[in-house]
Amino acid sequence: MKRVDLNCDLGESFGAYKIGQDELILDYISSANVACGYHAGDHNVMAETVKMAKEKKVSIGAHPGFQDLMGFGRRAIQTSPEDIYHFIIYQINALKGFCHLHNVPMKHVKPHGALFNMAAKDPVMAEAIAKAVYDTDPSLVLFGLSGSELTKQGTKLGLDVANEVFADRTYQPDGTLTPRTQTNALIHDTNKAIEQVLQMVQTGTVTAVDGSTISIKADTVCIHGDGENALAFAQNLRETIVNEGISIKSIK
Amino acid sequence: MKRVDLNCDLGESFGAYKIGQDELILDYISSANVACGYHAGDHNVMAETVKMAKEKKVSIGAHPGFQDLMGFGRRAIQTSPEDIYHFIIYQINALKGFCHLHNVPMKHVKPHGALFNMAAKDPVMAEAIAKAVYDTDPSLVLFGLSGSELTKQGTKLGLDVANEVFADRTYQPDGTLTPRTQTNALIHDTNKAIEQVLQMVQTGTVTAVDGSTISIKADTVCIHGDGENALAFAQNLRETIVNEGISIKSIK
Amino acid sequence: MKRVDLNCDLGESFGAYKIGQDELILDYISSANVACGYHAGDHNVMAETVKMAKEKKVSIGAHPGFQDLMGFGRRAIQTSPEDIYHFIIYQINALKGFCHLHNVPMKHVKPHGALFNMAAKDPVMAEAIAKAVYDTDPSLVLFGLSGSELTKQGTKLGLDVANEVFADRTYQPDGTLTPRTQTNALIHDTNKAIEQVLQMVQTGTVTAVDGSTISIKADTVCIHGDGENALAFAQNLRETIVNEGISIKSIK
Amino acid sequence: MKRVDLNCDLGESFGAYKIGQDELILDYISSANVACGYHAGDHNVMAETVKMAKEKKVSIGAHPGFQDLMGFGRRAIQTSPEDIYHFIIYQINALKGFCHLHNVPMKHVKPHGALFNMAAKDPVMAEAIAKAVYDTDPSLVLFGLSGSELTKQGTKLGLDVANEVFADRTYQPDGTLTPRTQTNALIHDTNKAIEQVLQMVQTGTVTAVDGSTISIKADTVCIHGDGENALAFAQNLRETIVNEGISIKSIK
Repeated sequence: MKRVDLNCDLGESFGAYKIGQDELILDYISSANVACGYHAGDHNVMAETVKMAKEKKVSIGAHPGFQDLMGFGRRAIQTSPEDIYHFIIYQINALKGFCHLHNVPMKHVKPHGALFNMAAKDPVMAEAIAKAVYDTDPSLVLFGLSGSELTKQGTKLGLDVANEVFADRTYQPDGTLTPRTQTNALIHDTNKAIEQVLQMVQTGTVTAVDGSTISIKADTVCIHGDGENALAFAQNLRETIVNEGISIKSIK
Repeated sequence: MKRVDLNCDLGESFGAYKIGQDELILDYISSANVACGYHAGDHNVMAETVKMAKEKKVSIGAHPGFQDLMGFGRRAIQTSPEDIYHFIIYQINALKGFCHLHNVPMKHVKPHGALFNMAAKDPVMAEAIAKAVYDTDPSLVLFGLSGSELTKQGTKLGLDVANEVFADRTYQPDGTLTPRTQTNALIHDTNKAIEQVLQMVQTGTVTAVDGSTISIKADTVCIHGDGENALAFAQNLRETIVNEGISIKSIK
Repeated sequence: MKRVDLNCDLGESFGAYKIGQDELILDYISSANVACGYHAGDHNVMAETVKMAKEKKVSIGAHPGFQDLMGFGRRAIQTSPEDIYHFIIYQINALKGFCHLHNVPMKHVKPHGALFNMAAKDPVMAEAIAKAVYDTDPSLVLFGLSGSELTKQGTKLGLDVANEVFADRTYQPDGTLTPRTQTNALIHDTNKAIEQVLQMVQTGTVTAVDGSTISIKADTVCIHGDGENALAFAQNLRETIVNEGISIKSIK
Repeated sequence: MKRVDLNCDLGESFGAYKIGQDELILDYISSANVACGYHAGDHNVMAETVKMAKEKKVSIGAHPGFQDLMGFGRRAIQTSPEDIYHFIIYQINALKGFCHLHNVPMKHVKPHGALFNMAAKDPVMAEAIAKAVYDTDPSLVLFGLSGSELTKQGTKLGLDVANEVFADRTYQPDGTLTPRTQTNALIHDTNKAIEQVLQMVQTGTVTAVDGSTISIKADTVCIHGDGENALAFAQNLRETIVNEGISIKSIK
C-alpha cells in the first residue's frame, strides 16, 4: 500500500502576534514542524503547539530557522557552518524539552525558509544541519527538498530522510523547482495541484514544465497553514489521497 | 570533612561582545552556571563554554534569565508564572543539548539576576522555576539564595537544592542580604570576605550587621568572574579554603 | 462648539506579523499614535502608516513603548528615568524622520501600554517622558490618562497636554480607572459606552461606579483598532458624536 | 594646503557590553561614526557618544547597519532596497534626535560593515542608501569606499561624498581592496601603513600590489578604535600627518 506524509509549519505565532490556524490544520496533517523561537514562535507558543499536536496524534518535529524574526527567516544571512551547526543544536533541543514535558517523542527536523533553500544547494550548510540533527539524536528524520543536497548529506551521515515535494509548485526538467521569479512557478488550479501530488506519490514521477516526465521521490508533501483557502485545500487533498487508497502517515 | 561548592556565572559573552575571563576563572571554581541566550550568551558561546568547563572538570549548570539582553537580565520584568515556567524549560533544554553534544551531564540550574532575586521572595515565581527544573530532570540541583523561597519551593517539590551565600555581602539579623542601597551592603576588605565564607562553611553561622550571630546554610559560594580583582580574589579564597581542610566540590 | 479628538494606536504590525485594521480605522479617527519599533512596528510599517495617515488627513503622533516585542510593551520593566528619557528620544525622532519624508508634521506623543500606565502614577517616570518630548520639540502635545501624573508633569514643563478618557472603562469616585481585576471594570454595553463619552465631552463629568458624579477632562478618546467590533463601534461613536453637534478634531 | 579627515566607528557598546575606547580615540580623529542601535549601540550609548564627541569638537555622523546585533552588522542579509531605504531613515533620524538634544549638527552618514561592503558594489543598494540620506537632509556628507558605487550614487543624487581609504589594507591595480581571503590583504608594518596614507593624501595615488601606481581619492581615512595598538597607531598617524603639514579636518 502506498503511503505519504503531509507536513505543515506550525507554532509561528509570537507574543501578541498570531499567524496561521494551527488548531484547525492539525486535523488534516500527519507531521507538524514546530518553530523554535528564532525565525518565529516563542517558548509559550512552542509549549501550546506541542500539546495540541499530541492531542491530535500528529507527529512532532523541530522547525529551526535563521535568528531573524523581522524577516520571518525568509532572508538569507551569510554565516559559517559552525554557527549553523550550533543554532540548530540550540533550537531543536529547546523543542525537545517541550516534547519531554508532554511525554511525546520529537520525530523529525525540517529547516525553515531561507535556511531550507540554502541547504538544498549548498553541501557545506547541508552537512552542518545534518550533523547537528545526527549529533542530537540519530533516530530523527531529516526533511529536505526532494533530491536536494540536504537529503543527500543526511543520508550520507546515516540519517533517515524525507524527500519533500510541493503540490502547488512546478518542476524543471532537472527536478528543481521553477524559481518564483518565473510566471509559471505556481500551480493556481487546485485540481491540478492535487493531481500532481497523486502522480508523484503513485508513480514516483512528475511532469516538468517542458512536458517531460521525470523521476521524483515524494515522501512528504508540504501543506500551507495560512492563506484563505489553506484549510479547504488541505481537506480536499487529504480526502482525495485517502480515496485513492493511499495511507497518510508520518515517516516514523 | 567539611565541603563547599564554588560557583561562577559563565558564558555571558554575545556575538562580538566579550564579557568575563571564563577560561581563567574555571581554574578556581567547581560549578559553572552557563548563560542560555536570553539575558546573555549565544549558541556559539554556549557550545564553547560547555567544552571548556568539561576540560577543566568543572560541573556544568544552566543559568537561565529574563529575555532581556539590553538589561543583561538585571531588570525585573512583570510576567506570569506560566511564562516563567516555559522560558526556563526552553533555556535549560537548549543548554542540555550542548551538554549531550559533549557527552557531559548538566548538573544544576541557577536563575540569573532579577529572576534570582524575585524568586528569592516570591513563592509563585519560585514554584514556577522549581517545577520547570523538576519537570525537565528531577535529579538537577536547584541553586537559590540561602534560606530563600526558591530553595524552599525546590525542596517541597523533591529537588536537591544548594543554598548560596556571598563572600562580599553583609547579612541582616533575619538572614537576608543588606540591600545594595545601604552603605554597609558590601564587604570591601578581601580578608573579611574570606573570613565570612570560612565562618559560614565551618560553623553554619554568619555575623549579621548588628553583631548578632545567626544560622545560615552555605552549600555554595558565588564567585564573580569579571572585575579587576576577580581572579586574584578567587585564587585567594580557594587557597584559604583548601588550607583550612575544607573540600571544594560541586554539589553532585 | 464642543470638540473632542478620537485617537487610535496604529502601525503595530511587525515583519510578517499583521495586527489591526489600520487602513479602515483611519476613516473614523482624528489622531494616529504610530508605534516606533520598540514594543511593536518596524521601519517599513512606520513608513507605510505615516503615508496612510497623511492621505486620510489624520494627525500623526509617536507611540513609544518599552523595548519588548515579546510582551507587546504591556509588561512593566524596571528601569531608570535616564533610560526612559533616552528611549523616548530615540523612538520619537525615528518617527519624525518618516514624517519629514512625507512632509507632514508630527503633532503628539502618547506612551504605550505599561509605560503609559506607570507614567500615570509615577512622577519621576512621567517627568522623564515629558522632558524627552519637550527637549525634542516643545510644540508637541503630550497624551496621558486624564488627571494623571503624566499630564501634570507635561503641563509643568510647558507642554500642551491631552487628557485621555476611555469609552469602555468605568471610573472610581477619585477619578481613576476601575482596575481590570475588578468585575465592573469594563462597560460591555455599546450604548452605555457611547453615552459615557458624550457625558464626558458635553459636561466634563463622568458617573463613577458608586453613582456619584465627578469632574473629568476629556480632550481625547481612545479607540481600539483591533477586535471584532472595533470598526462598528468606532463608526457608531463617531456618528453619534457628530450628530450631537460635537466637532471631531485633533488637538492641534 | 592639503587636508584629510580621520574617521572612526564609535558608540558600539550595548547595555552591559563594552567595546572600544571611545573617550580615548576621540583625541585623534576629526569625524565620529556613531552606531544607531541596529548592528550595535543603544539609546543610552548614543546619547553619551554624541555628548563626548561634541566635547572633543569631533564632527558627528550616523553609522547605520543591518539589524543584526548577533552578527555585529558584519553578515550580509538579503533584503530589498525599500527595506534598506527605510532602515537608514529610521537609524539616522534616531541619531539626529540626540544631536538636536545636544545642540550639535549631524554632519555625515557612513554605512557599517556588510552594508558598507555591499553598497560599494551594488548600485541598487547604494542608491537606496544615498536616497535615504538625501531625503533626510541633502547637506549630509555620504561616506563610502573610495571609487565605489556608493560614492557614485551619492554624487549622482547631489550629495557631497567622502571617499574613504584604509591605512592597513592593500589595493589591487583596479583600485579595489585586496580581499581579506588573500595573504597580502593587510599591511602589518605600521610605518608602511602610515606611508601609504601620506602618499594617498599628498599625491592622490596608491601603489597597488603589482607595483603599479594608480589614482585614488583620499578624503577620509578609517581609523580603528579597538584592538591593542589602535590608540598608539592613531596617535602616530595623526602626528605624522600634522608634521607633514597636512590639515586634519572633518569634511564639512
